[in-house]
Amino acid sequence: MSSNHVKIFDTSLRDGEQSPGASLTSAEKLEIARALARMGVDIIEGGFPAASPDDLEGLRRIAVEVGNPPAGESAGSTHVPVICGLARANRNDIDAAWAAIRYAAHPRIHTFLATSPIHMRYKLRMDPEEVVERVREMVGYAYSLCPDIEFSPEDAGRSEPEFLYLVLDEAIKAGATTLNIPDTVGYTTPDEYGALISGIMANVPRIENVTVSVHCHNDLGLATANSLAGIMAGARQAEVTMNGIGERAGNTSLEEVVMALHTRRGIFGLETGIDTTQISRVSRMVSNYTGIPVQPNKAIVGANAFAHEAGIHQDGMLKNQQTYEIMRPETIGLSRSRLVLGKHSGRHALKARLAEMGYDMTADELDRTFDRFKQLADKKKIITEADLEALVEDQSYQSEEVYSLDGLQVACGTMGMPTATVRLRGPDGYLHIQAAVGTGPVDAAYKAIDCIIGSKINLLEFNVHAVTEGIDAIGEVTVRLQGENGSRHTFTSPQSEQVQHRTYGGYGADTDIIVASAKAYLAALNKLLRSAHHEHAAELAA
Amino acid sequence: MSSNHVKIFDTSLRDGEQSPGASLTSAEKLEIARALARMGVDIIEGGFPAASPDDLEGLRRIAVEVGNPPAGESAGSTHVPVICGLARANRNDIDAAWAAIRYAAHPRIHTFLATSPIHMRYKLRMDPEEVVERVREMVGYAYSLCPDIEFSPEDAGRSEPEFLYLVLDEAIKAGATTLNIPDTVGYTTPDEYGALISGIMANVPRIENVTVSVHCHNDLGLATANSLAGIMAGARQAEVTMNGIGERAGNTSLEEVVMALHTRRGIFGLETGIDTTQISRVSRMVSNYTGIPVQPNKAIVGANAFAHEAGIHQDGMLKNQQTYEIMRPETIGLSRSRLVLGKHSGRHALKARLAEMGYDMTADELDRTFDRFKQLADKKKIITEADLEALVEDQSYQSEEVYSLDGLQVACGTMGMPTATVRLRGPDGYLHIQAAVGTGPVDAAYKAIDCIIGSKINLLEFNVHAVTEGIDAIGEVTVRLQGENGSRHTFTSPQSEQVQHRTYGGYGADTDIIVASAKAYLAALNKLLRSAHHEHAAELAA
Repeated sequence: MSSNHVKIFDTSLRDGEQSPGASLTSAEKLEIARALARMGVDIIEGGFPAASPDDLEGLRRIAVEVGNPPAGESAGSTHVPVICGLARANRNDIDAAWAAIRYAAHPRIHTFLATSPIHMRYKLRMDPEEVVERVREMVGYAYSLCPDIEFSPEDAGRSEPEFLYLVLDEAIKAGATTLNIPDTVGYTTPDEYGALISGIMANVPRIENVTVSVHCHNDLGLATANSLAGIMAGARQAEVTMNGIGERAGNTSLEEVVMALHTRRGIFGLETGIDTTQISRVSRMVSNYTGIPVQPNKAIVGANAFAHEAGIHQDGMLKNQQTYEIMRPETIGLSRSRLVLGKHSGRHALKARLAEMGYDMTADELDRTFDRFKQLADKKKIITEADLEALVEDQSYQSEEVYSLDGLQVACGTMGMPTATVRLRGPDGYLHIQAAVGTGPVDAAYKAIDCIIGSKINLLEFNVHAVTEGIDAIGEVTVRLQGENGSRHTFTSPQSEQVQHRTYGGYGADTDIIVASAKAYLAALNKLLRSAHHEHAAELAA
Repeated sequence: MSSNHVKIFDTSLRDGEQSPGASLTSAEKLEIARALARMGVDIIEGGFPAASPDDLEGLRRIAVEVGNPPAGESAGSTHVPVICGLARANRNDIDAAWAAIRYAAHPRIHTFLATSPIHMRYKLRMDPEEVVERVREMVGYAYSLCPDIEFSPEDAGRSEPEFLYLVLDEAIKAGATTLNIPDTVGYTTPDEYGALISGIMANVPRIENVTVSVHCHNDLGLATANSLAGIMAGARQAEVTMNGIGERAGNTSLEEVVMALHTRRGIFGLETGIDTTQISRVSRMVSNYTGIPVQPNKAIVGANAFAHEAGIHQDGMLKNQQTYEIMRPETIGLSRSRLVLGKHSGRHALKARLAEMGYDMTADELDRTFDRFKQLADKKKIITEADLEALVEDQSYQSEEVYSLDGLQVACGTMGMPTATVRLRGPDGYLHIQAAVGTGPVDAAYKAIDCIIGSKINLLEFNVHAVTEGIDAIGEVTVRLQGENGSRHTFTSPQSEQVQHRTYGGYGADTDIIVASAKAYLAALNKLLRSAHHEHAAELAA
């Protein structure tokens, strides 16, 4: 299966969502999955369905809506990605994964089991023989349900090579078609990881009939280099996340691997199916929905990544374009002129522009967006593409509300006593009003909201970012919060099986940052409240 | 000169400061240089003195104050870093660099000239023979002033190997003691860059008598891997910046190279002189002063980098510590318990704590900090180390004020018409008051400030970050702005020699984010006004 095509396996919605605060609603996951499919991702890992009924349902929707050709179009006329679900090596997890992905045109089950002495002994409490038997049995079981099976030997880097080869051989015999090699502890160097993949390519029988995959973490800043070393050694699938999100220092960045292969194709001689001009837009969407900002000096997608280039353009000197030749901003979809629409633009122009940007709206959604567009155009002369994105994403964020913001009034400044008055519409349909004093206007608004909702909240992170140039910009706020300790707000990591506190991210956009802050807080709170509600319902049903 | 010590050459204050918006005042540079010295950096590149009299003076202060042992202490009893200044290969630049650094105990001049065909032909318009002659002459001239000379062949990666070896040989003969190999376009892979360094080690005569240095950029996310590949090939100096700041996607991160060498010393067998427990604090200082945020999933210094570890601690299970063994947060100076002081803490306790944190204050500065500490303690029950840092850094940021904030009053909310009233004390000593309406409260406050100051400002970026956990946190705001087009706000890049617009960063901290926003804007404006003033003075003197 050696070819010059490297499959891009995006796990932003699974491993990426394990980052603190990245919890996404089903609606957000679906929208990100659509954007990933549009960008040409080969495989979308959309969740860990055994985690909760919510996770299962979220992945099922992706399988149904993103994992099939659009109604009326035949298979083959558009790119339809493989939809993948993660499962530990047990029947319950595999059944849950299959239940979620079976409606996709191309479903995949991804199952894993640790193969290092330390993991087998302390985490699994299994003998090597039991591990081999479990892999044979569970890969076989998964294969009885689904023809496309991926197997990962967890902590492969610290496994005995001979044992690792044996396990991989068994996985192939039992039906695995992709073997993914995770650098679980994020510690290998490119030489070590390349050698690990080379060893597998050289020693596992019939390895040429399956796809070998790289999965690296960025704890030492080496994830991209390790992934490329694995690809040079023969791997033809890269597991990545947008913006490199993920636990700790995150996973390998999709954009770095794709652009390294693209820009240096002269030395790699490999290609991916990614439409690079979508990278910039998908990066912003993932950042907004997860609430995880991208630093300005982030490779490829940071705000400054092409700043030097801009200087060259201004200068317009060809000699410099050659002497400091770097990537073109257009390649990742950064267009220099971001002027889009103004006050006098009509509904038709807005619709056309949104369609170009990849937003497919119902008439109702378009109506709401147009209203908000007009309100914004009254305040701001020029509406840019980034403004429109903020508008649309703020709107879809607010779509599953428990409490909604009906009014906010704030007084603050250097004389102290910052005061906020908040009016919310509750799930009962009634309006609730409350005033509070805080250490600052945001604190005051949040205290007033807490008072109405009556829950104890722990604010972990708060970020404001002005999306657009100019002093009249739309402010975007992302927050991350945690409920009080209690079983309803915890989750279990699929790898470590540790109970961790769930954190919730929220996003809000407004020209008034205090209003945006209140919206973001409510968005996160609504997620928390819905989640508490679901889990409560699940407990009652059990 | 092969040894197992890798010298850490920090260029945060030179190449890092070339990032858009990272402009630092002399006072900030000095404080960062002190922190770098305390952390054990071997060489501090503190500026490009030929750029302006301001840059020269900033570096001179670092040379005098950080480049010498503290008064009363003998050389050798404390670590005193080498202080380095950058110079193009001409007498004027070298003289300026020498004028700045000569007062350091260990001064170094770093000069560079391009050696690739494309750069020699289009940028330098010089024959290869002329380049060799210029290197011989200018390295020799620098060596006549200073015994420690570093030479960089710019665009080494695209130079003819034989020509590159010849130039480096000439540089050694003329007195260079360090040869730095920049990956100017940020494009090499670890294999290519490692091979470049190996080729130099094998082919340049007497290379064993000098130190070879790596200098990589992160355009494809490979800077750390490239630097490590160069070190494995024999380089014993790494040029890095804190948080990986720098033009475009930035330079190699100090923290990633240091922690990779430290954590994987089993395979590298190398050490650095860095006290890793200072990394976290210096990272925050550089981020606050430059206004360049660090993303949560940044390796080593991101807010989430150790989040997983925290979960393990809570859980307290030794088995997991082994199975998912990663770096310890304490190693980079992240202490779990950040509780420091409360309302009843006295001046003595505050002073002791600040000294522990590395802040060395005059009695006057301590008085001011204590006043602000008491004000904060009235609002917030527990004052953490992060709160104290924000307090101190906000204070040192505001120290060179042209206009200062005397009062601010804001009303905003969902009913529209956000209004701010601002009172500033001007350079004339008088109070100026102005009200304005904006699209939001920050816009309104900024409009009122613009009105008083009477200048046209372009706000490029605006970020708010709550430093501390909890809803009553101190909000930190960083902004980046640009003045109107005009010669007073441009600078010339030492490499490309292109004129670029200067941008100014500002930082402010307050429990009220609108107040913090006004402070940050004023801090940036004050920088712009002082810079305009200096350059105007320089023009008059010329």
